[in-house]
Amino acid sequence: MSSKDRYLKVVELARRRGFFWPSYEIYGGVAGFYDMGPLGTALKRKLESFWREWFVRRHQDMVVEIETPIIGPARVYEASGHVESFTDPIVQCTRCGRLFRADHLVEEALGIKAEGMDPRELNTLIKEHNIRCPVCGGKLGDVRLFNLLFKTTIGPYTSNTGYLRPEAAQGMFLAFKRVHGVMRNKMPLGIAQVGRVARNEISPRQLLLRVREFTIMEMEFFFDPDEDYSSIVEPIASEKIRIRTGEDKRRGLEKPGEYSVGEAVQEKIIMHPWLAYWMYEASRFLEKLGVPLHKQFFDEKLPEERAHYASQTFDQVVWTERWGWVEVSGHAYRGSYDLSRHMKYSGQDLTVFKPYTTPLKRRRLRIRVNKASIGAEFREKTPKILAELASMQPEEAEAALKEKGYIEVAGVRLTDKHVSIVEEEVVETGKRYIPHVVEPSFGAERLLYILLEYAYSEKDGRTVLKIPAFLAPIQVVILPLVSNHEGIVRKALEIKEMLSNMGFTLYYDDSGSIGARYARADEIGVPYAVTIDHRSLEDNTVTIRYRDTWMQERVPVDMLPSRLRSLLAGKEHLS
Amino acid sequence: MSSKDRYLKVVELARRRGFFWPSYEIYGGVAGFYDMGPLGTALKRKLESFWREWFVRRHQDMVVEIETPIIGPARVYEASGHVESFTDPIVQCTRCGRLFRADHLVEEALGIKAEGMDPRELNTLIKEHNIRCPVCGGKLGDVRLFNLLFKTTIGPYTSNTGYLRPEAAQGMFLAFKRVHGVMRNKMPLGIAQVGRVARNEISPRQLLLRVREFTIMEMEFFFDPDEDYSSIVEPIASEKIRIRTGEDKRRGLEKPGEYSVGEAVQEKIIMHPWLAYWMYEASRFLEKLGVPLHKQFFDEKLPEERAHYASQTFDQVVWTERWGWVEVSGHAYRGSYDLSRHMKYSGQDLTVFKPYTTPLKRRRLRIRVNKASIGAEFREKTPKILAELASMQPEEAEAALKEKGYIEVAGVRLTDKHVSIVEEEVVETGKRYIPHVVEPSFGAERLLYILLEYAYSEKDGRTVLKIPAFLAPIQVVILPLVSNHEGIVRKALEIKEMLSNMGFTLYYDDSGSIGARYARADEIGVPYAVTIDHRSLEDNTVTIRYRDTWMQERVPVDMLPSRLRSLLAGKEHLS
Repeated sequence: MSSKDRYLKVVELARRRGFFWPSYEIYGGVAGFYDMGPLGTALKRKLESFWREWFVRRHQDMVVEIETPIIGPARVYEASGHVESFTDPIVQCTRCGRLFRADHLVEEALGIKAEGMDPRELNTLIKEHNIRCPVCGGKLGDVRLFNLLFKTTIGPYTSNTGYLRPEAAQGMFLAFKRVHGVMRNKMPLGIAQVGRVARNEISPRQLLLRVREFTIMEMEFFFDPDEDYSSIVEPIASEKIRIRTGEDKRRGLEKPGEYSVGEAVQEKIIMHPWLAYWMYEASRFLEKLGVPLHKQFFDEKLPEERAHYASQTFDQVVWTERWGWVEVSGHAYRGSYDLSRHMKYSGQDLTVFKPYTTPLKRRRLRIRVNKASIGAEFREKTPKILAELASMQPEEAEAALKEKGYIEVAGVRLTDKHVSIVEEEVVETGKRYIPHVVEPSFGAERLLYILLEYAYSEKDGRTVLKIPAFLAPIQVVILPLVSNHEGIVRKALEIKEMLSNMGFTLYYDDSGSIGARYARADEIGVPYAVTIDHRSLEDNTVTIRYRDTWMQERVPVDMLPSRLRSLLAGKEHLS
Repeated sequence: MSSKDRYLKVVELARRRGFFWPSYEIYGGVAGFYDMGPLGTALKRKLESFWREWFVRRHQDMVVEIETPIIGPARVYEASGHVESFTDPIVQCTRCGRLFRADHLVEEALGIKAEGMDPRELNTLIKEHNIRCPVCGGKLGDVRLFNLLFKTTIGPYTSNTGYLRPEAAQGMFLAFKRVHGVMRNKMPLGIAQVGRVARNEISPRQLLLRVREFTIMEMEFFFDPDEDYSSIVEPIASEKIRIRTGEDKRRGLEKPGEYSVGEAVQEKIIMHPWLAYWMYEASRFLEKLGVPLHKQFFDEKLPEERAHYASQTFDQVVWTERWGWVEVSGHAYRGSYDLSRHMKYSGQDLTVFKPYTTPLKRRRLRIRVNKASIGAEFREKTPKILAELASMQPEEAEAALKEKGYIEVAGVRLTDKHVSIVEEEVVETGKRYIPHVVEPSFGAERLLYILLEYAYSEKDGRTVLKIPAFLAPIQVVILPLVSNHEGIVRKALEIKEMLSNMGFTLYYDDSGSIGARYARADEIGVPYAVTIDHRSLEDNTVTIRYRDTWMQERVPVDMLPSRLRSLLAGKEHLS
């Protein structure tokens, strides 16, 4: 392979052949925005469909997909914690006015890790070490927090602040109660969503890897935190998973360890079986896209690196030639954080009722109140006394009565004349709980880039994009061997028409030598080329040429569609 | 059918079974935003895929799909005219502070048409007729224009205004040059996009019909305005299309006329064959969704109703029980408006070069300049003289020389000593032009609602949702006839597992009587129910029950997948 790295080659190919390019080019571009061209869009749609197939349809007993808005009212993101916590520290040069990520400046100037430092710490470091503007050398102002939510106004009243969602997740939390209802109270329940999100990054970079708007493919998986789910990893207990634990990371280890899924759960390296289950599914998903297991692992985030809602997070990272290990998905244990916050902020009950198989009979204490005697003795104080009694623990009251002979409420003393403690039997039919949540979350554009980098290969100095056939943006190219032979051209066009009517994605190419046309098709990953030649006119056969091996097979035209279909469908990717 | 109208029934069903519901319910809701639930999302994905199949893949020779960002820099929407023209008139009550659409208030108060009136006219009417706040009766303030673009800021610099796109179209215009390039300069060229758009409506209403955020399915179709495209409508010349022309509308006609496509083009009722072509495709598309031709027509917009970029527009409207004729798609002749504006605002050349089949030889005049003699005589004035000569028309110079014996440039007189007019032959290999554009544009959520309204039916007092099978969100339900018979349940679960592994979308239902389970499935449009009964255990057959007819057929289990596949695929919808 030549000296340019794969990243540069992929980007050059992507731009030249129409996978993707920077948006708003004719206006000089705006950092952090990318257009998907015809091939990129076709590939992305297939990638999204495959994600859906893998994470949703294959699990249709327990996972559904929804779609919720991008714009949301301020209250939602106050509740979610994003208004307060979804921030990066920035600092402005007092001379040239340029803005910078303060932690990045400190990292670059001092060669230390500054992620997670608060503005005060960063300020101190900047002053102490006299860190200056890297562009003009001017003095830097004070570090402040910049919120990464895109802000807008909903409707004509300027006070109605809205935000663009930075993740799809909140849509699933807000809709949880209703989805749970329409799914007839099924638990566990996964709610997935594929859609756009926006993050107002301060300095977007690395092309598709850190952008301001992208497509997220995300699932919130809700379950009962008290239930023992260890059996769900049993079928995959001996499968391997690569993890760099937080502990490894603190000790400076670069390499991940290899664990069996069973071991990772048992030893609490992964804090919940469901988290492990979806991580394993994610690693298999990446394999299907062409990333072998030894080129990916799960990197545990340290507490200071984690988002505000998570109690454990793993980044699934993939090796790239230029950028090293790059995150392609996040796997967070969000616990009951989000539902609890929305219960608090909305005042709505988002708990789930779980009926017991057999109702539980339990004995419990109750404070029996003699209202007449309290009313007679304490008069206008009575309502206050009754209110305080209502919120009192019966066990506490019993102990006080036993010990002191009275209980003190609202400044008065009540004796067994006013209250008594009785024991009674109650029947509990079930329990109410706030579900816990694990979240696998993928960035579609990053995956698309990774897919291209892993598909990229060179053979005899030519580019061959070995995109897995089931994901190829164009399935077939139709080539008349000689492009000025009337019979051959007519037959080629007939075959093109037939295949197109049958639903294949294809194009017809009659320009240049057959070699040049194969090369053009290889370069954009068309897995099969159908060539019509002189013999086709005699015996009604054509050749299918394979992108990956450059081998050819000859098939009768009437077998062509079914042969192509079985080549393309090859369901290996689904098992 | 009972007294509630279909709209109310569909909305009730949608909410109860999980097609869609208002977003942010737990926070009291925000007008103009809707969530798609599990069934709604599955249906919407199929609708989008079918749109793609119909408008893009079936036309893959000339149409491609791209994806561009939702957030765009201000310059784009200044160029597109939206910052200036995408407005509605609003007026505020001086007493209660409420805001209203001024034209709606005037329409309601005076019973006249006020759409398209400017703020001055509306103000005059409000003052003249003393129109007051409809809520508190207070005096109204001055009418002003409210821009419907959602506004935000891109990056940390507050001066970088951005907008959320109100249509996908601008993404296609900005990317046109590059897409045209990667498509090897193919023309005509359709660039399609399916994605979210946002419009900050003042008073969203009618559920899914006027919302603040929705999915648009849009195509910009670029072509050479000088080319004769009349042949493209030849194959469909005798097909019928229903149109209410602008003229009909002015004359107060409510009903559309029926035309053949050929006639509509010939008589310039539709101003361009490509506009007619895509309108015809749109009417067939709606038929496939279940809307018969007599329930839809194309309603021409009057000049004052048209968007600022269009020189002819038709709304495709569909009959609804509650709302009357409702727009589901727009068909605009955008001409060269958008590309011209972006050329002007960006300074980039967005023209297309069209080579002639044979180069054109043409004779033309040229001003031959004798620099030496000019330099010698006019010295330091020479550069200015040469510059002015360069931009002079040779014909003009020739005439002046003939008439007056000199030409006057930069304040000096040049004679045949300094300049001469020569005739020379040039070869033109082609022409440059700005493509014209027609645009079919659909709202996905509206179509989804229409699809549900047309699928809605009642039979024996039960709801049957006759969604075309190829669009059904769930394809199959698996029902054990008796849900406590071990053998039947085991077999049913086996069949469920088999069909699920083969890619079917399905669910298993063992709760309640078989009748109740059929009813639940009919209500959400599951086209086929597979029932496993006692006989299944004996002869390994099951029944397939049809949603639309309630008929049943018995098939061997090993024939079941292929039978279901052919029932579901029934490719009639693709031709």
